Amino acid sequence: MKVDGEHYRTIWYDAEAAAVGIIDQTLLPHRFETRLLQSLVDVAEAIQTMRVRGAPLIGAAAAYGLVMAMREDTSDNALKMATDQLLATRPTAINLRWALDRIGRELRAAAPSQRHELALQIAVRVCEEDVTCCEAIGEHGVKLIAAIAAQQSGPVQLMTHCNAGWLATVDWGTALAPVYKAVEQGIDVHVWVSETRPRNQGLYLSAWELAAHGVAHTVVADSACGHLMQRGEVDLCIVGTDRTLLNGSVCNKIGTYLKALAAREHQVPFYVAAPSSSIEWDQHKSMDDIPIEQRSSEEIWRISGVDANGDVSEVALNSNANSCYRNDAFDVTPAAFISGLITERGLTTARAENMLALFPEHR
Amino acid sequence: MKVDGEHYRTIWYDAEAAAVGIIDQTLLPHRFETRLLQSLVDVAEAIQTMRVRGAPLIGAAAAYGLVMAMREDTSDNALKMATDQLLATRPTAINLRWALDRIGRELRAAAPSQRHELALQIAVRVCEEDVTCCEAIGEHGVKLIAAIAAQQSGPVQLMTHCNAGWLATVDWGTALAPVYKAVEQGIDVHVWVSETRPRNQGLYLSAWELAAHGVAHTVVADSACGHLMQRGEVDLCIVGTDRTLLNGSVCNKIGTYLKALAAREHQVPFYVAAPSSSIEWDQHKSMDDIPIEQRSSEEIWRISGVDANGDVSEVALNSNANSCYRNDAFDVTPAAFISGLITERGLTTARAENMLALFPEHR
Repeated sequence: MKVDGEHYRTIWYDAEAAAVGIIDQTLLPHRFETRLLQSLVDVAEAIQTMRVRGAPLIGAAAAYGLVMAMREDTSDNALKMATDQLLATRPTAINLRWALDRIGRELRAAAPSQRHELALQIAVRVCEEDVTCCEAIGEHGVKLIAAIAAQQSGPVQLMTHCNAGWLATVDWGTALAPVYKAVEQGIDVHVWVSETRPRNQGLYLSAWELAAHGVAHTVVADSACGHLMQRGEVDLCIVGTDRTLLNGSVCNKIGTYLKALAAREHQVPFYVAAPSSSIEWDQHKSMDDIPIEQRSSEEIWRISGVDANGDVSEVALNSNANSCYRNDAFDVTPAAFISGLITERGLTTARAENMLALFPEHR
Repeated sequence: MKVDGEHYRTIWYDAEAAAVGIIDQTLLPHRFETRLLQSLVDVAEAIQTMRVRGAPLIGAAAAYGLVMAMREDTSDNALKMATDQLLATRPTAINLRWALDRIGRELRAAAPSQRHELALQIAVRVCEEDVTCCEAIGEHGVKLIAAIAAQQSGPVQLMTHCNAGWLATVDWGTALAPVYKAVEQGIDVHVWVSETRPRNQGLYLSAWELAAHGVAHTVVADSACGHLMQRGEVDLCIVGTDRTLLNGSVCNKIGTYLKALAAREHQVPFYVAAPSSSIEWDQHKSMDDIPIEQRSSEEIWRISGVDANGDVSEVALNSNANSCYRNDAFDVTPAAFISGLITERGLTTARAENMLALFPEHR
């Protein structure tokens, strides 16, 4: 997508510098800066400190981490050490483990002398696959927006949550891919961005990327979303997913479930942009099998922003030692609340039989 | 209620200093400081800058503002000017206008020579009435908590929103009065405090007053409330109200409606602590007649906290000029979602006939 008219991806290979380029997302929305990662250590640091974040983008970054490692030493031992180092950056990210396992197998099957070049081919392929997948989600999802636009005057009012935009992927995003496709097709669309406490990915990232690409949007408190739907100011919700079960339950950023509740109450279609990589194809997994990550309480009572001197600094919102905090990072939205899933192969209901019909290789 | 073991009200008359004492709520939760208001100008400034806030407390402060005014000049003209000055502090606070009208009538009916003493009597009475009303809400509401406690082991898990605690009133609070009564009765109770973006009254004020009084509580993001109810971790919701219609609709802090939606979905009783002063007795008013105050967008993208030097300072969370913001301060929860109202005369359903049966003087 574009930043002030210039096209960017979140990650790229700079052949001249033999380095990996990224957008440093820890500086957003305050500063837009790109950064060249020159080594495996640089890549691991970038994942760990969340200069790159979002499951698809982390996978792509890890692939480039192996490219950097193989440039120095192509031995089995170096490959294992690099894999372990990358895995340790985000120990709970299952996508990361899955991506590294897959790439590791491919590299070990090749002769050491070919591993650096192969790793680079794989990294490029991982990125292209992600872009293709997200763009396909956009092409399927935009039909929902176009259908609403055809039935009304004025912009289609779309609501999203957290950041499932291009910043979380290599390009296009998942939940926001249909929005970018709508803009491309000249459809008038406006996005309600909920700030997404406590980490503010809506306020920090979704608002930034929509503004940078020139998409109309309005940031609201998470608490306002029911009120907006009650007032008839939302035509369609599209959210992302961290994990999609075959029973149709969707585990996504905390707050998704409240939006789904309000959407059902007010007959607002509620769609989940779900690349097949987010789907757990094990029939036996249920909501109870989804562990909800509890993150640090500091995310609730500390916050960073730009101070009066123009520096990014942190403030404590409440330093009362006698208060407890709880910070569940995700919630689960049952299938009954979901109008449909937008996958890279098209729309489906959140039902196992229909999901498997679209992806028969997982039967 | 208590602050570290010592009893406080939010406002009091210091006879020795002939001044009005308040807790400076703009410093909470970072610092607990009381302040003496020596003049009408001091009182008006305290209301305007929200050193005192919450409809009942603003009414009490305004009454003391007239005491200060009458000390200097007891003429009709001085009374009118003082009333206008106080009204201008919070132009949208209808309680303030109502309180000033009522007190003004009483003062004008008295001889000028008696007005200062009368104003003081009225101010003391206004405060005592508020304390009596809130304590009665506590006594009626605690029965709900006691009934749950009798049926289960472990603490009663109560959820509230915003700050409808003693800091918003003279003492006891409205939604939190039943909690303080439960603590007084030795009932094991734990309060889920939602931070209440964008002004963070939950995180700043409810957490502070519960901690100061020694009540177990946990602060969560507003977005977590549906998830907690889905997981069965909430036994009872009690929220406050800014305006209660005779059709049972409740206008309260933005986010109340999402909690009500989740409570109904998970069969969690959802009560509104509604002093009769919050009830509009006009049969013809409906949801559409409630104007929703839209507040400054800065409340969403600016925030204050304690910086690294220990000073309270503001930071900008997003200074992107290309993003829009919308900040509706209230939402409306229809009667169908409300298990009951807790008034100073007891519990009632959110139905006109039952509300009027409890307050027949408004028929």
